[in-house]
Amino acid sequence: MPAPIPAPFTEIAELLTIVPDGDEAAVEKVRARDVQLTKPRGSLGRLEELVEFLARWQGKTPPTLENPMIAIFAGNHGVVARGVSAFPAEVTAQMVANFTNGGAAISQMAALHGLNLRVFELALELPTGDITIESAMDDQTCAATIAYGMEAIAGQPDLLAIGEMGIGNTTVAAAICAALFGGSGADWVGRGTGVDDQGLGRKAAAVDAALAFHRGALKDPLSILARVGGREFAAMLGAIIAARQQKTPVIIDGFVATAAAAVAYSINARSIDHCLFAHVSAETAHARALASMRVKPLLDLGMRLGEGTGAALAMVLAKTALHLHTHMATFAEAAVTDRS
Amino acid sequence: MPAPIPAPFTEIAELLTIVPDGDEAAVEKVRARDVQLTKPRGSLGRLEELVEFLARWQGKTPPTLENPMIAIFAGNHGVVARGVSAFPAEVTAQMVANFTNGGAAISQMAALHGLNLRVFELALELPTGDITIESAMDDQTCAATIAYGMEAIAGQPDLLAIGEMGIGNTTVAAAICAALFGGSGADWVGRGTGVDDQGLGRKAAAVDAALAFHRGALKDPLSILARVGGREFAAMLGAIIAARQQKTPVIIDGFVATAAAAVAYSINARSIDHCLFAHVSAETAHARALASMRVKPLLDLGMRLGEGTGAALAMVLAKTALHLHTHMATFAEAAVTDRS
Repeated sequence: MPAPIPAPFTEIAELLTIVPDGDEAAVEKVRARDVQLTKPRGSLGRLEELVEFLARWQGKTPPTLENPMIAIFAGNHGVVARGVSAFPAEVTAQMVANFTNGGAAISQMAALHGLNLRVFELALELPTGDITIESAMDDQTCAATIAYGMEAIAGQPDLLAIGEMGIGNTTVAAAICAALFGGSGADWVGRGTGVDDQGLGRKAAAVDAALAFHRGALKDPLSILARVGGREFAAMLGAIIAARQQKTPVIIDGFVATAAAAVAYSINARSIDHCLFAHVSAETAHARALASMRVKPLLDLGMRLGEGTGAALAMVLAKTALHLHTHMATFAEAAVTDRS
Repeated sequence: MPAPIPAPFTEIAELLTIVPDGDEAAVEKVRARDVQLTKPRGSLGRLEELVEFLARWQGKTPPTLENPMIAIFAGNHGVVARGVSAFPAEVTAQMVANFTNGGAAISQMAALHGLNLRVFELALELPTGDITIESAMDDQTCAATIAYGMEAIAGQPDLLAIGEMGIGNTTVAAAICAALFGGSGADWVGRGTGVDDQGLGRKAAAVDAALAFHRGALKDPLSILARVGGREFAAMLGAIIAARQQKTPVIIDGFVATAAAAVAYSINARSIDHCLFAHVSAETAHARALASMRVKPLLDLGMRLGEGTGAALAMVLAKTALHLHTHMATFAEAAVTDRS
């Protein structure tokens, strides 16, 4: 019998339990055009799947990419006091300024490829509680932050890339994954921004301490999110939930964004069917998290930056795939002989 | 003792044996800037390697991508008479027209991403000999076609993507790989444009027949190219050779282009150090060919179209990587605190 859902999470759990289906009729229309295009059937591989994915979750054929949006959610974490990052907490706010000023990797990816970048700061001056000795947030704050994330994408993007920034948040992601999927700190931590062996040990110890401190209270995924999570995780979960309701397909970036999706997955595996996983990052636990959810990432480029950078590359592939689908000639138009 | 090189190939073999080194000083300058950019060191993974690759083989820092060129080499093959393709030979010329008219996948990729597309037709009205019963070309024709491929990139692109079109050419690629790396037809053939099980059997039988017919004459890689290869393979080899001489890095597309690179590799493994392998295709033998050359492809998207489409996607990643390298802020410029 599943654990009872704490009252602040009742509505959120309902939105994750009963989710709209994809539009298979839209997918069939995509396929009907695809077989007419001047190439062997199936020969564009996952590019063809990307167009089907857009059609299925937008519910229209051809799908559009007129308003692709990269949303970065930024938060700060009390667990940074445990020495879990190679960078100080002040870097979170500094990087948020860098996103806006165009100096960051994601800023330049967005500029080069015509993607809209929006940055959502989550009370950076108020780090969450140190998860090794207290809850990250109370349930009310967590639910309110999920609701904030739902509102964040009110601009109705036709494709949403979800990324994040938060010094210390790979440790938090590890704690969430360990609580959801089992295993110890050592199974889920990695070098993040580049900690040395001692730092890696501190990360594993922090996760183990958090799991021990909150033992008995980690009964349902949303309680896990409040206890050992963080604000940007809650907001990303909200964005994932709202996207499903408003027919916006989602591209998930790296390990941290994947941990937010894992909360939804653990309530209802079908609730993230509208999410594509952009890449497997060099953060070692990311592959484990993806395998736990039985999803296959699109890219494997050894990236581990976050900020939505992997998701932005996947968005470029999606733009390319859709452009081919809508602009290539058919066999009839090009007078090319179809199969002998 | 290596086999003597037939006279028409003497100069070509020399160009492959003594090759210019990469510019490691240019790479060091790239790395010196890279560590100043506002991201954890190494966190862009293979995107960082792409910038180093461009600098190493262009011999300049920062490298440029002002004249990226996709070269498609198209040829026809006598072995089509053995029923090895799902499409008739006339499709080669029809697709060449489609490239030029903008209807093909590669045309639209090039248009979307600002890449220059050039198509080189190689006597499409004169298919090469049926390799199961005769040589594809004589040595003089093969050498002349290699020379043609060398001239094809006289426009001095700063990055060259090599792709191809040729009904029947996955069978020829399989024959080349089997002759270079060992194994039988069944080890190297795949479904190409989409042959059924019978077609697959005919492909394997054609490769085995070619290996048997030319047994004793497949002594050196350039003789293999002439005997069981094809015109577009020879031209691609020429382009690879010329690119090294003129400091143009190269991106190799799929299985067929890889087979052309394999001829160079088999003469001198270092002769393809300036070649990046864009992707591993769904054509099953491609992974085997890449492993035989100990190279790791950039992408794995289940594509099997050819035309340079995988290479074009890798070019987009290279453009993105270079744009980040030249446009991101440094820690000092953005007032972001470097490691604690």
